[in-house]
Amino acid sequence: MNLFYVKPEDVKGDRVVLRDQELKHAVKVMRLQVGDEISVTDGKGTLYRCKLQSLSKQTADLKILETKNEEPEAPELTLCLGIIKKRDRLEFAVEKAVELGVNRIVVFRGDHSEKQKVRIDRLENSILSAMKQSLRYYRPEVIVENSLFSALKNADPASAIVLADQQTSDQNISVGKSKYLLVVGPEGGFSSDEIDTLKSFGAISYSLGSKRLRTETAGIIITEHFRNLK
Amino acid sequence: MNLFYVKPEDVKGDRVVLRDQELKHAVKVMRLQVGDEISVTDGKGTLYRCKLQSLSKQTADLKILETKNEEPEAPELTLCLGIIKKRDRLEFAVEKAVELGVNRIVVFRGDHSEKQKVRIDRLENSILSAMKQSLRYYRPEVIVENSLFSALKNADPASAIVLADQQTSDQNISVGKSKYLLVVGPEGGFSSDEIDTLKSFGAISYSLGSKRLRTETAGIIITEHFRNLK
Repeated sequence: MNLFYVKPEDVKGDRVVLRDQELKHAVKVMRLQVGDEISVTDGKGTLYRCKLQSLSKQTADLKILETKNEEPEAPELTLCLGIIKKRDRLEFAVEKAVELGVNRIVVFRGDHSEKQKVRIDRLENSILSAMKQSLRYYRPEVIVENSLFSALKNADPASAIVLADQQTSDQNISVGKSKYLLVVGPEGGFSSDEIDTLKSFGAISYSLGSKRLRTETAGIIITEHFRNLK
Repeated sequence: MNLFYVKPEDVKGDRVVLRDQELKHAVKVMRLQVGDEISVTDGKGTLYRCKLQSLSKQTADLKILETKNEEPEAPELTLCLGIIKKRDRLEFAVEKAVELGVNRIVVFRGDHSEKQKVRIDRLENSILSAMKQSLRYYRPEVIVENSLFSALKNADPASAIVLADQQTSDQNISVGKSKYLLVVGPEGGFSSDEIDTLKSFGAISYSLGSKRLRTETAGIIITEHFRNLK
């Protein structure tokens, strides 16, 4: 199955309008034609099975044949990771987090982060493409924060803050919370100020084992673990 | 800690010779000088803490101060995955598998593999760099096989063959074997011949969950699971 994305405002009644990149992909790559069936999601939890009704250069008009709503996955996971210097590794981290089911991504500028700029448009593309590839119907948002402090301050207060740690796991880690903020340190490690910040927000530690993992790998492993919490 | 690699034949008595890329990295990037300490591994389980004794254009001579041997991780894991069309994704899959502790990697040409050529030198570089980055002292080998059948035929007969599966897990999956061959399907899926081959070799299934994962992500998740089997 190929999944396409439409903005929620492009769904009206039993009609859906496909535009831009998604239209291009449907017509030029998948070579869909009038009468073909096509699956689209609004990234808000709904899957529409549609029929391609008509095609123009700018848009394709689809008629909804069937609507399916999906509940968001629980617990709600936010992956909060330091900027990764190499762009492809940051994009990869974001792509994999979406594939594995995070609900939101926060990228923060760490005190020891070497790189400060983030191409958020590219991260949004990675998210969209991973969402479609893994047949998910929720589109995670991505936010850039200027510091770890901002990231924690702006987090949902109902979230349990969990720090991906090389060494130790706190005992009370598996308590069934409904929301987790999973913090992965930046490549240069945390500053002592950042460690104090984590403590002041009551972060608990989850051990990823004794081996040193890259930031993007730590993000994958902690996401996978918390997505499968029972 | 920065870890360097030397071939086992470059360790003689209490002396180690650093060459080529590793020498360049030590001198040009890390700016090590005579008298500095340096950690090297032979990729066969031994870590040497050394002192840089002398430097020439071609080699650096190191004196061993301390030797530490590490047992290979158990169970022994071989990741067997179909060729991934995009080179960076294949290299990424290999890098992550090494970070997470596989002992060997087999890349096979699937019946539905779009791409047939593999740059094994680049995969070996990914392996070496991931081994050093994650402070592992065993260097996994990588082998390319012309078919899934060859990959299974040439596997250690003591290995339990486990298929990463989207749907079902066999009941007897967690039986404590000492060796596992973890098979991840190629991007185009398995052919019916390949499915018969898997059956004839007694492959058991391990479910990665209902969501569709990319080949490299499936490789990461199954490696992580079997590395942490208790």
